[in-house]
Amino acid sequence: MNIKSLNEHLSWRYATKKMTPEQTVPEDKVNAIVEAIRMAPTSSGTQPFEIFVIRDADLRAKIRKVARDQSPITDGSHLIVFAAWDDYTAERIDEVLNLNIELRGDVPGLKDYYENLKEMYLPLDARTNFEHAARQAYIALGVGMVAAAEQEVDSTPMEGFDPDKVDEILGLREKGLRSVVLLPLGYRHAEEDWLLPMPKVRKSRERLVTEI
Amino acid sequence: MNIKSLNEHLSWRYATKKMTPEQTVPEDKVNAIVEAIRMAPTSSGTQPFEIFVIRDADLRAKIRKVARDQSPITDGSHLIVFAAWDDYTAERIDEVLNLNIELRGDVPGLKDYYENLKEMYLPLDARTNFEHAARQAYIALGVGMVAAAEQEVDSTPMEGFDPDKVDEILGLREKGLRSVVLLPLGYRHAEEDWLLPMPKVRKSRERLVTEI
Repeated sequence: MNIKSLNEHLSWRYATKKMTPEQTVPEDKVNAIVEAIRMAPTSSGTQPFEIFVIRDADLRAKIRKVARDQSPITDGSHLIVFAAWDDYTAERIDEVLNLNIELRGDVPGLKDYYENLKEMYLPLDARTNFEHAARQAYIALGVGMVAAAEQEVDSTPMEGFDPDKVDEILGLREKGLRSVVLLPLGYRHAEEDWLLPMPKVRKSRERLVTEI
Repeated sequence: MNIKSLNEHLSWRYATKKMTPEQTVPEDKVNAIVEAIRMAPTSSGTQPFEIFVIRDADLRAKIRKVARDQSPITDGSHLIVFAAWDDYTAERIDEVLNLNIELRGDVPGLKDYYENLKEMYLPLDARTNFEHAARQAYIALGVGMVAAAEQEVDSTPMEGFDPDKVDEILGLREKGLRSVVLLPLGYRHAEEDWLLPMPKVRKSRERLVTEI
């Protein structure tokens, strides 16, 4: 693999509107993308989401039906579903604490830190906690899109789907999860994607950034 | 700059707890980080946030006081504040539409697309729209942390601050913005950062990922 700069990755990628159904993303590339998502930073290291990597074509066809019929879901070869925790619970935070103890030892302050986290999150309503978890999933989404570009794999971040229906299809609610964003992986259809030849649209530095 | 893989960037970075006050991040590196944030993908290309890059030491000291006294805010040389739109408005979406027309021309379907977006967002309550905007800012946060690592600059993502007070300090509410996350930039204090020698804690692939 030819290693490029982040800037080159961000220029190369675009929200691919039409993928070619002929090509399959090799598993080593999928693994690299998943690994980047796994290594993405999250608040207090909680990683408050799970991802579902779907190869099964029938399942992807089912999801496409509740996702405004967007073709990359089935023209791509893999679909990543990001599903955030529906709430913070003592069990979930204890699991993170225990993993910390396992890997770092019983470092002074560690237990207090996660006890404080429980005191902070558990009294909050589920929606507030879910929204917080969803934000963390979006950090991983950002990192995952960069990872795909690094692998020269196209990806299409999608929020245009019925989350309740995707949750039902994947049985997410029973697991305390809620789907937040989809990321099909595949290869751009160079001739048929109307978006590919378009220039990238980004706000000017002056509009987006205030220097103080 | 020695270009490395994303995986190397993700291994190198960590949420730096102690920065050295002696070193200043060079402006070309800050520029590269800001540029990556600017190029980060967002939902429908709305980029529904602004960032504030604060060099001013007094202002950073003020923010540190409402951010649990976390030292990287002042030991680092720059503080990036991510501030999401407090709501979607017709004016904001029209600005995005107009930028699209300016850069891509009056492409068929473009106006309809953003009209539909208005029909979707404007009836929703401000909190729902703000949370959606905040998620987009977190994509940019993820990309920004990778960008910092690529520049061999340390960064510390921080949610532990009083957003109302930061909004007040920076006058964000008047601009229709709400602070969502802070990212100090600087250099790790190799001797005094307790977190640096600790192994990175991440959930196992099996725990985080379901393959279907």
